[in-house]
Amino acid sequence: MFGRTHYCGEITDQHIGEEVVLKGWVQRRRDLGGLVFVDLRDRTGIVQVVFSPETSKEAYETADKVRNEYVLDIKGRVVARSRETINPNIKTGTIEIQANEVTILSAAKNPPFTIEDRTEVSEDVRLKYRYLDLRRNTMFETFQMRHNITKSVRSFLDEEGFIEVETPILTKSTPEGARDYLVPSRVHPGEFYALPQSPQIFKQLLMVSGFDRYYQIARCFRDEDLRADRQPEFTQIDIEASFLSQEDIMDLTERMLKRLMKEVKGLEITEPFPRMTYAEAMSRYGSDKPDTRFGMELIDVSEIVKNSSFKVFANAVAQGGQVKLINAKGAAGQYSRKDIDQLAEFAARYGAKGLAWLKVEDGELKGPIAKFFSEEEQDQLKKTAEAESGDLLLFVADKNSIVADALGALRLKLGKELGLIDDNQFNFLWVTDWPLLEYDEEDGRFYAAHHPFTMPFREDLPYLESEPEKVRAQAYDIVLNGYELGGGSLRIFEKDIQERMFKALSFTKEEAEEQFGFLLEAFEYGTPPHGGIALGLDRIVMLLAGRSNLRDTIAFPKTASASCLLTDAPGEVSQSQLEELHLRLSVEKNG
Amino acid sequence: MFGRTHYCGEITDQHIGEEVVLKGWVQRRRDLGGLVFVDLRDRTGIVQVVFSPETSKEAYETADKVRNEYVLDIKGRVVARSRETINPNIKTGTIEIQANEVTILSAAKNPPFTIEDRTEVSEDVRLKYRYLDLRRNTMFETFQMRHNITKSVRSFLDEEGFIEVETPILTKSTPEGARDYLVPSRVHPGEFYALPQSPQIFKQLLMVSGFDRYYQIARCFRDEDLRADRQPEFTQIDIEASFLSQEDIMDLTERMLKRLMKEVKGLEITEPFPRMTYAEAMSRYGSDKPDTRFGMELIDVSEIVKNSSFKVFANAVAQGGQVKLINAKGAAGQYSRKDIDQLAEFAARYGAKGLAWLKVEDGELKGPIAKFFSEEEQDQLKKTAEAESGDLLLFVADKNSIVADALGALRLKLGKELGLIDDNQFNFLWVTDWPLLEYDEEDGRFYAAHHPFTMPFREDLPYLESEPEKVRAQAYDIVLNGYELGGGSLRIFEKDIQERMFKALSFTKEEAEEQFGFLLEAFEYGTPPHGGIALGLDRIVMLLAGRSNLRDTIAFPKTASASCLLTDAPGEVSQSQLEELHLRLSVEKNG
Repeated sequence: MFGRTHYCGEITDQHIGEEVVLKGWVQRRRDLGGLVFVDLRDRTGIVQVVFSPETSKEAYETADKVRNEYVLDIKGRVVARSRETINPNIKTGTIEIQANEVTILSAAKNPPFTIEDRTEVSEDVRLKYRYLDLRRNTMFETFQMRHNITKSVRSFLDEEGFIEVETPILTKSTPEGARDYLVPSRVHPGEFYALPQSPQIFKQLLMVSGFDRYYQIARCFRDEDLRADRQPEFTQIDIEASFLSQEDIMDLTERMLKRLMKEVKGLEITEPFPRMTYAEAMSRYGSDKPDTRFGMELIDVSEIVKNSSFKVFANAVAQGGQVKLINAKGAAGQYSRKDIDQLAEFAARYGAKGLAWLKVEDGELKGPIAKFFSEEEQDQLKKTAEAESGDLLLFVADKNSIVADALGALRLKLGKELGLIDDNQFNFLWVTDWPLLEYDEEDGRFYAAHHPFTMPFREDLPYLESEPEKVRAQAYDIVLNGYELGGGSLRIFEKDIQERMFKALSFTKEEAEEQFGFLLEAFEYGTPPHGGIALGLDRIVMLLAGRSNLRDTIAFPKTASASCLLTDAPGEVSQSQLEELHLRLSVEKNG
Repeated sequence: MFGRTHYCGEITDQHIGEEVVLKGWVQRRRDLGGLVFVDLRDRTGIVQVVFSPETSKEAYETADKVRNEYVLDIKGRVVARSRETINPNIKTGTIEIQANEVTILSAAKNPPFTIEDRTEVSEDVRLKYRYLDLRRNTMFETFQMRHNITKSVRSFLDEEGFIEVETPILTKSTPEGARDYLVPSRVHPGEFYALPQSPQIFKQLLMVSGFDRYYQIARCFRDEDLRADRQPEFTQIDIEASFLSQEDIMDLTERMLKRLMKEVKGLEITEPFPRMTYAEAMSRYGSDKPDTRFGMELIDVSEIVKNSSFKVFANAVAQGGQVKLINAKGAAGQYSRKDIDQLAEFAARYGAKGLAWLKVEDGELKGPIAKFFSEEEQDQLKKTAEAESGDLLLFVADKNSIVADALGALRLKLGKELGLIDDNQFNFLWVTDWPLLEYDEEDGRFYAAHHPFTMPFREDLPYLESEPEKVRAQAYDIVLNGYELGGGSLRIFEKDIQERMFKALSFTKEEAEEQFGFLLEAFEYGTPPHGGIALGLDRIVMLLAGRSNLRDTIAFPKTASASCLLTDAPGEVSQSQLEELHLRLSVEKNG
């Protein structure tokens, strides 16, 4: 074997006349006019190699035997292609390699799917043969981008004086939050480690240590029922700093993302990013992570219709709810009654009991409910909704939360269907002033909207016991194109406030002490004000690489049932392994 | 609060006259001559702050209340110290800060130990209050160095075309090797994930994918009984590449370490590093990781003494063993009989049944066993050992492995005791040509000396079934100052060789298929020749930072019983958590 001189995809006209050594996989082999053509692929792309019996009979005969996905070692000369054989679809389309030596390094069976960017095969097959799936150039490019993203982040944070510190993966179970993955201890019978849902407590302890500026590209774990965009293990860019204000941390994040967009996507984005309070986001977009690449905002018409003869609307307002609409500009013609029925079904998934609608024709509101509104009400509706002929108005009347959820989801659906979204646009947005606590009807208690260490607004502290739902948090989420990229907050650094927070979360003094006693104690030894942010790396990669699915951003992902189809994890273990861990199964296993 | 302008340790004469804002912890407060002096500490060092009632009565009165470890926000002016108050022991010793404002950001209880580089407190207390322990500047410096090391490695590998890919933490249990940490699955009753002992299989699959050059700063896990230099989770610099020879990988590693030493320690080291086969290392140093900073090599005198009248020596050789010595130059006078008895006790820990010795006085061998050797034997011994007056010769006669272990350990002990080791020297060394397999007497089978994926020497393949102990591996360890920094190998990439390897390791065909079937299958789809190396990051930090213990290189380490004294992990979990995981404890727990 001889050393590679170039990657396949990097050979250009500049190399004509040079002797090169290439290593790669056979994308395709063709026999044509007494020659063998091999498209040779490596992680950078494809180059055409020509074997002629006149150049080397031996190489020609070897090449004649190769099949798709064979691994070859090739020596040859770069030559220009004749004008009629130039292939403008590939980077190396103006040249080809005249091979004079070839070695088959590894043969290959016929793969279960062809290695091409667009593959029709099911995702299950792709995941089982992940090592073949990853051969597709589009996959490698995604991981190259992931590498570039972490590189950009690391170099930015390094320049800003942050040091990367690794925190433990084997740590303590903290039942608050999502479900923990547990790891039984062999040395301590009946005891368990937990895998961290985030390095939250450790990064705060590093602030107590005076590390001042910490970051970590950190693996985190949540044993939750998986949705399309969740994985049992995920990676976050985890940042914490002392002595910074919320403004400082937001500014730092903006500069990091600005540089990232420049270095990774070649795009200039402007800072400061737009900001919106949580209340405003919910009101205008029905979402705490608005996609601001298009309008079609939610419009409150409760005041206009509260006395109308349309009882559904009037009652909703009377019962403390709302009536809101979205105006699908110019879409009246595109949505038949049947289509609108389907939109209503869609809205129902978000709890909406119905979806009322009106179309504007020749300046007039038309539709089954039009008759319930007086002329004045109709005029006001049109004015408020900025409704013009051809517009479709869609209404939901319900409790505020249902109105927001249903219209927020409808807005996104219509935005896509009507082609209002520019895929090349990257709209960053801060959502601020979150509620500190959320009431859970089912459990009859408050949960932390972010996490239990989030600092309340100082001026709201007096309400922490009396009206907890009123208390706002010094928390901020960063949103990109309707996805939550991450969130952060200033943290509580005073023991007494932290104790009040635990109490608001229905911890007894003993529970708080048992689970977080070490943190409360740490706060007593001189704790700096501190705060931070965590950004989901997988999601950043997904959005920047233009992928639709988090699994495409993770080299060896799990399925929705948390299985690895490649290695067949999880799997059974031996009786002796269980015994060492002081465990018995409470289920019967075969084998 | 106002924004920090400088870190404490960075203020120098250049800043005299400037107004500065500092944030930090009170290292010490003194009242002296109507002034309050506060030594303010942050992660960069300490600066002296002076409060005078004339500058600001309010600041003076606040400062008078502060105690050790209070967190302060200070505004003041940099002034030169008068000549007699200059403190040459600290970086900022020529200046001080005349404070005109101060805010107490956080009060502090009296800490359980003072925050100083040299602390007398027990390690258990340091670990329980790790957040205080990490305030010591020597600790922060270690983590700053750790950060600098990974930064240097990442930037080198990035320039060499390697991309960092994250591999799963939740993966499949592979009983070969050390004990796995297991993670019960909630979704798949009775099944378990395992935490990876290394990303070995995944990095090889990435090579099958054509990723070509991969690295990862990877967390790894081993549930082993812990020694002083082991942690249940540890970090390795994990590297794999395709189409490279062993020489290429060694060269890459050397260039990476050379640059690391330059960037992190400011030291020029020369490459190529010295190399030694495993057989030579064992023979000359009695160790597979020789500390080559000093001589005192093991000298084989079997041929000289095999016919002597000293039966212990003669018998050892007759039974197929060896007699070797080390020559402790000029140490005869420093070791009394009693001292040598203690050395014999030490050697006994490594299996040596005895430790024979001779001293050289006036050119003659002296000692209880001298009489057993003829004049010619004595002359040959002196000549071979290069023995001169004042030297102490220590002999072990036994099976080869015991001779190596005992004399290898004695050599290190004497090297330290006799001051032969230069702490400022960094001796890198490659140990090559390892045996592929090691026979385990107890289990009556062979185990992989490195791991089951290591490529044998091609010319040794014919012996894989007939004389497995003869087969050498294309494996290489990198050693620094007597510590194994890491190791690597070329990997098997042909299914038939891998199957023969599994057979040599006593796997049945079914076991191999069940555990590694996916890897064997992957090899059938076009696998490039590949290999790599993994280096222990924690150990590199330990050696470069001059620490004696791996725990000092890990922010939140575990004890020898795998506990975290800070968070009290592992801990008990609730019955409902166990039920969700389909588990019962086979031990009784209180509470």
